[in-house]
Amino acid sequence: MNAAGEDLTQQLDGEVGLVTPKDFKCTGPFEFESGQSIPEFILRYESYGRLNADRNNVVLVSHALTGDHHCAGVHSLKDRKPGWWNSLIGPGKPIDTNKFFVLCANCIGGCQGSTGPKSIDPKTGQPYNLTFPFVTIRDMVLTQRILLDHLGVTELYAVIGGSMGGMQVLQWAIEYPDYVKRIVPMATTWRQGAQAIAFDEVGRQAIMQDPEWKEGSYDSDKGPNVGLAIARMMAHITYLSDRSMDRKFGRKRPGGKDQSYSFDIEFEVESYLRYQAKSFINRFDANTYLYFTRALGYFDLAGAYGSLDQAFKGIKCKALSVGFTSDWLFPPEQNREIVLAMLRQGIEASYTQLDLDLGHDSFLIESPELFGLIRDFLAS
Amino acid sequence: MNAAGEDLTQQLDGEVGLVTPKDFKCTGPFEFESGQSIPEFILRYESYGRLNADRNNVVLVSHALTGDHHCAGVHSLKDRKPGWWNSLIGPGKPIDTNKFFVLCANCIGGCQGSTGPKSIDPKTGQPYNLTFPFVTIRDMVLTQRILLDHLGVTELYAVIGGSMGGMQVLQWAIEYPDYVKRIVPMATTWRQGAQAIAFDEVGRQAIMQDPEWKEGSYDSDKGPNVGLAIARMMAHITYLSDRSMDRKFGRKRPGGKDQSYSFDIEFEVESYLRYQAKSFINRFDANTYLYFTRALGYFDLAGAYGSLDQAFKGIKCKALSVGFTSDWLFPPEQNREIVLAMLRQGIEASYTQLDLDLGHDSFLIESPELFGLIRDFLAS
Repeated sequence: MNAAGEDLTQQLDGEVGLVTPKDFKCTGPFEFESGQSIPEFILRYESYGRLNADRNNVVLVSHALTGDHHCAGVHSLKDRKPGWWNSLIGPGKPIDTNKFFVLCANCIGGCQGSTGPKSIDPKTGQPYNLTFPFVTIRDMVLTQRILLDHLGVTELYAVIGGSMGGMQVLQWAIEYPDYVKRIVPMATTWRQGAQAIAFDEVGRQAIMQDPEWKEGSYDSDKGPNVGLAIARMMAHITYLSDRSMDRKFGRKRPGGKDQSYSFDIEFEVESYLRYQAKSFINRFDANTYLYFTRALGYFDLAGAYGSLDQAFKGIKCKALSVGFTSDWLFPPEQNREIVLAMLRQGIEASYTQLDLDLGHDSFLIESPELFGLIRDFLAS
Repeated sequence: MNAAGEDLTQQLDGEVGLVTPKDFKCTGPFEFESGQSIPEFILRYESYGRLNADRNNVVLVSHALTGDHHCAGVHSLKDRKPGWWNSLIGPGKPIDTNKFFVLCANCIGGCQGSTGPKSIDPKTGQPYNLTFPFVTIRDMVLTQRILLDHLGVTELYAVIGGSMGGMQVLQWAIEYPDYVKRIVPMATTWRQGAQAIAFDEVGRQAIMQDPEWKEGSYDSDKGPNVGLAIARMMAHITYLSDRSMDRKFGRKRPGGKDQSYSFDIEFEVESYLRYQAKSFINRFDANTYLYFTRALGYFDLAGAYGSLDQAFKGIKCKALSVGFTSDWLFPPEQNREIVLAMLRQGIEASYTQLDLDLGHDSFLIESPELFGLIRDFLAS
């Protein structure tokens, strides 16, 4: 289903189909958790399906670090790829757009249409760059709540997301216990550990030490592309698993060529990483990468609320947490701990660990087990 | 025992003590596996203990990617740190210098005294830089054999090493079956998988994309330090484990400072990585990093000999292979596979998996279990 393309006009049946992103502009100031503020902001978002009369059939999708609002459908019939969660969202799909009004917004601080470091600061007429406020997961949630209020949404039927999206999901439940009815955090954590913080720091250093970064004030057409590419290549490895990489690439040579001796591409996996990096630097802003990885690092529910149990004390939603055996970035245990803490608070929560072997990115694949779980949970 | 320092003169009892590195110069040409050659080369090495009359009490230590020949003792009584395996090597220690003549050489291609990319090419009077031949694990072994022949060593009582050192150990057993009596490969692999190849490629890209790299022809005082630092920080994470990093650093703030908002050091683990990188760029050459990581990637016993069983067909030594549960760079399974293949060839081999939780670097720690194993194996 994921492979849109050639004959798309005939495939639109059962698909979200053509979508147009919308911009919501909040014309009042927003104060970030850091105490810094901006006078106004835009959130770019997409929605699929129809808001019902009670405005309570909303499934909010939260995107991951390098994701965006375009999670289903296509922007043009010529698009080679649909949105990043197109296999999950659509008429008759697990997140059924015949029933639900599905919404996804590019996070504040982002670079895909929402206000972020590369946006123009109305006070100066120049890009914010590093004067943009530090962003936290809570800031992402609070700005999205403003959007939902603007749309008149009265409650969230569910919030779902993986990785950084899963952090937002947890924050939603804590922040708005009466508003959020169901949550599905996946492949996430309630606080980053030292290893994840360390990988993010290396990525930031690769960017910030790139001479083209210029303290964040690079021109939009000539940024720290080398550093951003290095950060992406490294991070990409952490999203996969040893096993899936061996299955897909192993020690294969590009084009089946024999062993040679060179510092050029010698193995297919090297070619793959360079391709990933190249496509990434064309779509992602280096400063947003800095801000969002800091948001990941700062996220710590136990630190923010005294303990994880304390963090979950007031929440009222039902929860389905999903961890993946092969995810070594946010290991299954950290996802299980979320549910254990919720259960101690008397919350109706369940944990499932799936044996998909794609690593952290397992939450993005079209898996019958995962999709069945989500479908059933949303029907509950 | 590792903490040399203040009162060293009184601690030398039971220690290797003061050592002086030696240079062996091979004045004839050496042809590398790639077919490229150099007219002469130097191997810098250290030795501890005494060569016996039969010249057959030699324990050869093979160093890892960023290691060197200085594996025991001190170069000066003011040295703050002894050699990298000082806890293992010395009078009465598991590798007992009262019994054994212990030798370790900086690998060919290295940057700690042995001939490598930054050495002067006698033909041009200029540093080799990227005209240095590609190095393989086999080249490391063959050049060390020339050194041992020069010293009149008649056989190797044992060869021991971890990581890249473990690869050399395996190659020794294959290359010189009558010469090598015992091998101890640890935390190693018989071929790098896609994930390890990928991490090394990111490190190389960080170096080669650094504008100061200059196609490898940088001045020795002004190299691609930024790229080398990024490569080191990333690689260092892969040498540790999630658990050990959480135990050591967790989410600790430097100096216990409160949460702030900045792209400077916010977590202790970030400070640690920067410190590691800084000390690394002061002692290691970027081009050697490129050559040695390529040597790691090219190493593939199954590829080179048709199969792992075929690779081990002619070997005659006894083998002790050690894997570490928390090592996710060269996981225990890959170490076990080595022994399984040896056993299929009728070789006296045993495998032990140790539950040390320091990750790949577990082979470097002073562990009673590990040290007991090595002591017993060497006594066998």
